[in-house]
Amino acid sequence: MTDTDALFRRLEGELPAGALLTDPDECWVYGYDNSRRQGRPVAVAQPEDRDQVAAILRHCHAAGVTVTPRGRGTGTTGATVPDHGGVILSTERLRRLEPVAADDRYVVAEPGVTNGAVQAAAGEHGFFWPPDPTSAAYCSIGGNLAYNSAGPRAVKYGTPRENTLGLEAVTMDGRVLRSGVRTTKGVVGYDLTRLLIGSEGTLAVITEATLKLTPLPEARATLKAVYADMAAAARAVSRIMAQPVVPCALEFIDGAAIEMVHSHSEADLPEGAGALLMIEVDGPAACLEASATAVANAAHGEGLLDLQRATEAADVAALWATRKALSPALRQVAPKKINEDVVVPVSRIPELIEGLQGLGRRHGITIVNFGHAGNGNIHVNLLVNPDDAEELDRAWRCLDEVFALVLGLDGTLSGEHGVGLEKRDYVDREITPATLDLMRGIKEAFDPRGLLNPGKGLPNAS
Amino acid sequence: MTDTDALFRRLEGELPAGALLTDPDECWVYGYDNSRRQGRPVAVAQPEDRDQVAAILRHCHAAGVTVTPRGRGTGTTGATVPDHGGVILSTERLRRLEPVAADDRYVVAEPGVTNGAVQAAAGEHGFFWPPDPTSAAYCSIGGNLAYNSAGPRAVKYGTPRENTLGLEAVTMDGRVLRSGVRTTKGVVGYDLTRLLIGSEGTLAVITEATLKLTPLPEARATLKAVYADMAAAARAVSRIMAQPVVPCALEFIDGAAIEMVHSHSEADLPEGAGALLMIEVDGPAACLEASATAVANAAHGEGLLDLQRATEAADVAALWATRKALSPALRQVAPKKINEDVVVPVSRIPELIEGLQGLGRRHGITIVNFGHAGNGNIHVNLLVNPDDAEELDRAWRCLDEVFALVLGLDGTLSGEHGVGLEKRDYVDREITPATLDLMRGIKEAFDPRGLLNPGKGLPNAS
Repeated sequence: MTDTDALFRRLEGELPAGALLTDPDECWVYGYDNSRRQGRPVAVAQPEDRDQVAAILRHCHAAGVTVTPRGRGTGTTGATVPDHGGVILSTERLRRLEPVAADDRYVVAEPGVTNGAVQAAAGEHGFFWPPDPTSAAYCSIGGNLAYNSAGPRAVKYGTPRENTLGLEAVTMDGRVLRSGVRTTKGVVGYDLTRLLIGSEGTLAVITEATLKLTPLPEARATLKAVYADMAAAARAVSRIMAQPVVPCALEFIDGAAIEMVHSHSEADLPEGAGALLMIEVDGPAACLEASATAVANAAHGEGLLDLQRATEAADVAALWATRKALSPALRQVAPKKINEDVVVPVSRIPELIEGLQGLGRRHGITIVNFGHAGNGNIHVNLLVNPDDAEELDRAWRCLDEVFALVLGLDGTLSGEHGVGLEKRDYVDREITPATLDLMRGIKEAFDPRGLLNPGKGLPNAS
Repeated sequence: MTDTDALFRRLEGELPAGALLTDPDECWVYGYDNSRRQGRPVAVAQPEDRDQVAAILRHCHAAGVTVTPRGRGTGTTGATVPDHGGVILSTERLRRLEPVAADDRYVVAEPGVTNGAVQAAAGEHGFFWPPDPTSAAYCSIGGNLAYNSAGPRAVKYGTPRENTLGLEAVTMDGRVLRSGVRTTKGVVGYDLTRLLIGSEGTLAVITEATLKLTPLPEARATLKAVYADMAAAARAVSRIMAQPVVPCALEFIDGAAIEMVHSHSEADLPEGAGALLMIEVDGPAACLEASATAVANAAHGEGLLDLQRATEAADVAALWATRKALSPALRQVAPKKINEDVVVPVSRIPELIEGLQGLGRRHGITIVNFGHAGNGNIHVNLLVNPDDAEELDRAWRCLDEVFALVLGLDGTLSGEHGVGLEKRDYVDREITPATLDLMRGIKEAFDPRGLLNPGKGLPNAS
């Protein structure tokens, strides 16, 4: 019996029947994510509870086999791609969702529960969990936490780091840790909760999360503002974020993106518009009008072509459908699009947009932008023909300058997609060597043999 | 020349004239904090910038001398008390406050800037920084971050962890790290920002913080609700927190505390009341009435004796003065009070209060409670006569059971005061051995020789 067979035998002994896949065909679909990278795991384990997770990790650790934790594979950076082979630990069977603790505003979920299932359960009690990636219906809580995934609502309600009270997790050598609290305050011990959130499954496998819930707003209003050009829209974003009413969404679509989804959308999108803002405010019904007026006033300014409030539910839905259709639509148009999610301080958005236009022109690359303007989080898409090696090459050179531009504007390389494999080699442009050194020290404290999702998130030590 | 003299010479060489104190009398006042513990530092260094901080740490590291970072010494747990002797690194000269970045809603401050100075600067632009400990006028930002200090507003606006975008800090061996961003989103690298916040100066010395600012609310309303007994008030807190309007303060004073400050207060406090709630709502002027009505409705219920809205500014000020006078007043009454800041989920407050009353009776100890009820963060004060050794002994036994009660209710030992020396020996009741082990691993990654504020925050390894 080979070492691998022996490990399989041990893993099978820990798992329910059928919860260890070793057939390469069955394993194949666990080898890729939305980055379109592909790895080849030797096996896929589907544990059903915390103890099974710990047992799998311990066996792999003893055997020196790498483990890649995986939620639903909706990430875009390759963080769940097993490029070292090894075992995939799929959280798909970890789906316990405890009853909502309505009085204390939290719910306890295992990592395989979908974001959508949490929203549905919370909604019955008048709550929601703020993180809302585009893939919310399908993606898992574990993945949301691993990436610190956010979405449009983050501008008002924050990311998973601001909306998680505590975690249970297991390290590669099978140690079970519990961090955080079931209360909204707690300062005993180091904050391992936020350290694990956003660590892309490199420190420990989350087995349970205590999610902080927020009351559903009583009412919501959606505005659509059309601008002559991107610069005008970007200035409007700055004005909106400089006044006290924080919108619950402030999304941004540039002219190239509008054109691209025109045929896919039922929303009334103006031909030839330079940019579109979707602005949403929510809160108690008693102050909705005042809030909507405040943001509408801020949206007014040079370059505004049209400002409308979507009053019918169907109009609001069409507008959101348009926004959410952008990412898949772009993928259809340009299967090899390079999709970044850079962030700059809101006041620097005009400079970013202007700089991106210059870079696109100079490198002959079509750049399409949309995203969460209220956070300065812009999804920058470089469209490339996958069969044109020369264009691809130009695109990578262009991207290099995009990152330099962003960092020069006090920005960051990723707002919510994370690093994974895709951005790993750019991280040392943003994070200093001494800081990376400390991060590697933390990795070592959690995973001394470097077997848990190795090579993700941090650049290899030089 | 002794080793110590040689070290002093080197430190003096890095600092401006007069910025190294070695006279024991001058050092004395840097040896205690609000825990009333006293240590004896061999020297006090007052660096003026980041490079001087790094140089001091490097020299002490090389000499194997411990360093205790210190803000204004307003902490209550002994975290800044140099119980190992060594050098105090005082942040008092690190007082650079950059101009408020109003468009991007942040301000950059060095750790020695007071909370009050930040509020004043932010206020000029229509913003505030939410953390507001009672000592806000005097305490420093560095201390607020080291402890994750909060205050009444945390119930709506969060603690420093939710209100800090990034940090610069220096490790004991002089490595300068930069974490976080100048934007409201960012997921590149591990979250060292929240890891350092609340780590009580044991991992690195913060030299700069990017503080996230929040727009000042347009209007505020303050309600005072009097209840027949604590249990009735606790039930009201649960009702208030279960409805959608989150108050910006929900403070709680029990009957014993009311009696104690009666003579110190100008507020109209009813004789013989069992408990008092101070409820504040804020937001746009247009929805203030609706918000005040919503919380007032929730405040109504069995045991409510009186509910008034403080309409005059003087009434509001008197009410807050009463709340803020509690801590000092209690200290006058009982100089050896044991002052805890436990937290339980809001729905468990009635059980906590009932349990505390039982423990007080059983051990013959007067227990006075007040605090941030909206977070379930109750300041539990055990009043003891310092000259009565037997009573003191009973009080410690009582405290032991208080902690067991809190943990049994899914609570935590500290909401904002932290651990320091005071609560160190109780930490392993809340945090599991495997989790503590990981925390010690992180400490070692930052400070392998264990020279930076040793022995604070975590229990000694057994």
